[in-house]
Amino acid sequence: MRRLPDHQVEDLAALHAVLDDGRVGHVGFVHAGAPFVIPLAYGRDGDRVLVHGSTGSRAFRTLASGVSACLTVTLLDGLVLARAAFETSMRYRSAMVLGQFQPVTDPEARLAALARISEHVVPGRWAEIRPPSAKELAATTVLALPLREWSVKVNAGWPQDDPADLDRPVWAGVVGFAATVEEPTPAPDLRPGVEVPGYLRSLLVPGLSR
Amino acid sequence: MRRLPDHQVEDLAALHAVLDDGRVGHVGFVHAGAPFVIPLAYGRDGDRVLVHGSTGSRAFRTLASGVSACLTVTLLDGLVLARAAFETSMRYRSAMVLGQFQPVTDPEARLAALARISEHVVPGRWAEIRPPSAKELAATTVLALPLREWSVKVNAGWPQDDPADLDRPVWAGVVGFAATVEEPTPAPDLRPGVEVPGYLRSLLVPGLSR
Repeated sequence: MRRLPDHQVEDLAALHAVLDDGRVGHVGFVHAGAPFVIPLAYGRDGDRVLVHGSTGSRAFRTLASGVSACLTVTLLDGLVLARAAFETSMRYRSAMVLGQFQPVTDPEARLAALARISEHVVPGRWAEIRPPSAKELAATTVLALPLREWSVKVNAGWPQDDPADLDRPVWAGVVGFAATVEEPTPAPDLRPGVEVPGYLRSLLVPGLSR
Repeated sequence: MRRLPDHQVEDLAALHAVLDDGRVGHVGFVHAGAPFVIPLAYGRDGDRVLVHGSTGSRAFRTLASGVSACLTVTLLDGLVLARAAFETSMRYRSAMVLGQFQPVTDPEARLAALARISEHVVPGRWAEIRPPSAKELAATTVLALPLREWSVKVNAGWPQDDPADLDRPVWAGVVGFAATVEEPTPAPDLRPGVEVPGYLRSLLVPGLSR
């Protein structure tokens, strides 16, 4: 039996939690023999991750062709500051999903997938914005990556200094990162009288944005 | 001449700015024909990016062997909320660097590289922590990626709704993300009387952490 790497978590709920807390993942694929890594907004829908992009994008054409891909979502939770350089690390949660993206082609499924991504990023907004037109949908590729082969690593620990280092006069501990959402700024062309909706107000909670 | 993709920036200063504002990048490489993407803390040192890892790590052994790699650093600055789903996007800055990592082998250069990464992540800390021992250094791989082939994309814009959508009663604008640093939490084994150093106090500035 191979020893699990440090911090590895074998728990589907942990995978879902990382994916649900993130908004953007980094997707790797191979094109002409070389690796590329692009950032993509996504949404989780049960046991798959959904992404969308332009039909004109080379990356999306490559991903849609069924090549092997890797989606990694990393949430940085803080710095773990030890007295020794070697023990210094970060608190983080990172999920890696391996597999092939599959095009979502059914018209209703495509619209539902776009709604799911929107609701993942800004819960509550889909119901009031204008949904994509037929022309806009025709310019959009929707892809799904099944959550079949994956790993999750979590470090939520404290500095692990050698006992010989504990009496050094160096501060040690954790400095947490908090992602917060700023006060919404209206678009220059926003019509007078349109108020900030409640679902954006409830985004104003530390930790919800990454 | 190929049209530049939307948001592309051809400016070395912009590349440096993204790399200097980030703390963790996503590195893609190919192993046994499949792409992998792993998160890595890094430091920029002039015209190269430095990373370090365990000599026991499969990913680091692969990267050190000189395979093609892609480092992508993405900073999320906010949500761009349009009245139409199709025009909804994010404010972001993203840098992609392509190339081969090269092992840093000279002992003094290795120590300088580790100091550079530490100072990138927590400026001011390297001078007071215990530097790596010979044994710790022997367990550490240090790699450098030259900034030769790269691209930067930046979206700092506003919603670009179609004029026909402007009179919809939907709030439109930007919701910025602010990454802040929380009050430092001492390690359970911190000796009494060791105060939080000034360089951690000055980390307590919105926007410095990502």
